[in-house]
Amino acid sequence: MQREEPSFEIITVGNELLTGRTLNTNSQWLSERITQLGGFVSRCTVIRDDVTEISRALRESLRRDTKFVIIAGGLGPTYDDRTLEGVAKGLSRRLLVNKQALQMLKVKYKQMTEKGVIEKFELTEPRVKMARLPVRGIPLPNPLGTAPGVLLRVDTSIAACLPGVPSEMKGIFEDSLKRLITKLTGRVYTYSRSLMLKGIVESSLAPLLDGIVAKFPDVYIKSHPRGIEGTISRIQVEIGGKSRRKGVAETKVNNVAEELGKLVQGRGGSIALV
Amino acid sequence: MQREEPSFEIITVGNELLTGRTLNTNSQWLSERITQLGGFVSRCTVIRDDVTEISRALRESLRRDTKFVIIAGGLGPTYDDRTLEGVAKGLSRRLLVNKQALQMLKVKYKQMTEKGVIEKFELTEPRVKMARLPVRGIPLPNPLGTAPGVLLRVDTSIAACLPGVPSEMKGIFEDSLKRLITKLTGRVYTYSRSLMLKGIVESSLAPLLDGIVAKFPDVYIKSHPRGIEGTISRIQVEIGGKSRRKGVAETKVNNVAEELGKLVQGRGGSIALV
Repeated sequence: MQREEPSFEIITVGNELLTGRTLNTNSQWLSERITQLGGFVSRCTVIRDDVTEISRALRESLRRDTKFVIIAGGLGPTYDDRTLEGVAKGLSRRLLVNKQALQMLKVKYKQMTEKGVIEKFELTEPRVKMARLPVRGIPLPNPLGTAPGVLLRVDTSIAACLPGVPSEMKGIFEDSLKRLITKLTGRVYTYSRSLMLKGIVESSLAPLLDGIVAKFPDVYIKSHPRGIEGTISRIQVEIGGKSRRKGVAETKVNNVAEELGKLVQGRGGSIALV
Repeated sequence: MQREEPSFEIITVGNELLTGRTLNTNSQWLSERITQLGGFVSRCTVIRDDVTEISRALRESLRRDTKFVIIAGGLGPTYDDRTLEGVAKGLSRRLLVNKQALQMLKVKYKQMTEKGVIEKFELTEPRVKMARLPVRGIPLPNPLGTAPGVLLRVDTSIAACLPGVPSEMKGIFEDSLKRLITKLTGRVYTYSRSLMLKGIVESSLAPLLDGIVAKFPDVYIKSHPRGIEGTISRIQVEIGGKSRRKGVAETKVNNVAEELGKLVQGRGGSIALV
């Protein structure tokens, strides 16, 4: 598939991801949503809760001409939530209490006091910390939690910080980032099909795919060997396309599936929808 | 937790990871195993099946003084399996057919011919491709599939390429990399506990954790808010430690758990094992 601009990168922050304690479903969810919205995710990076690491990863990403960097994790009140500090360092900006963000937090903690979740309303230092944004950061309301997200414009690029709690991350993404992304990508239609090939091994499929890829350069084909049952080799094949006009991706993908089916049958294999 | 050398990085290669079509369980599995073996995973990167991207990601990783880089995915016979090409480019080495690797492949395809999985034994170009390694690469036998893994020494660092099929990746890791990693890390004992705190919000927990972290700098504590049930806030806390002597990590972690319990109860909260 041809590379389409603008490119997106995802940085997820958290020691628990690097020890394997937590499966990185946040990175997958963001990748899938951005792809659905027509964006091209060019890289995902996982780093630990460390100011220097966060700062470096953000700078590296911007140096790769990334249009939109999403950083998820590390916005909370505890000692290891250092993302805004790292982002400020990476962008050489100061951290300053943002009035709008502080107002958002006040509302949240007032609600919690009224509901009896906390005993008394106080804006303690760990709470105020979540309103300390890199200069010119715009706070994004958190519909399902406390810490606001943060949107930053950096020259012609955008960096957005989201909390690591999956529901909060998704909530802010849908409320505040979705529209922004769609504006960047324009409307894109995607279509994909999954086929199971039987009776052909991957090394015999390879030259058939070469021919198809040369003929349909803008369709993406990926083969996943699924083992050998008895003497029958099985390979799952994903075929995906996207287009700006409705129906075009479907036609391309279906043409590829049909051609692949013929070629595989010509080699004595069979093909089934998954 | 203090940073412990040697550091490891994981690079997973595959467009399907960047579109969110596939959840990156390989990265988690590798992170977890390396951590269990006493290694410190400092970064995970996901890139697409692209020679330049693979080459860049590897170079960047080695520039960060990574001792051991594991690259998973892209060793197969199809057009989009470009990892060895990318690694060769990244290390400025040529790709050459490796006799040992070719012998491994011969054995695999002969077995497939005898079993009737493929009709006749042939070493076609897509099959030979899997034996074309960066110069001075050492092939690693694949107990559960076809493509050999590859081990490369780069100055004082090591780079290892593994297939992306999870069973094959795990097989080669256990057979060929585990011992190598243990030799680098030495024996390390790890211990962790998970607690559920109730009746305290994260921003009230934050200053308590600050005190504990200052007192126990080599124990790792991470809090994960688990929402509010009725009026009761719930936070899951992971406490982890490692040590070279048996029993030391347990003692440290248990001390932290005990101290945290007391502090949380002093604030009107309660604590339970998960």
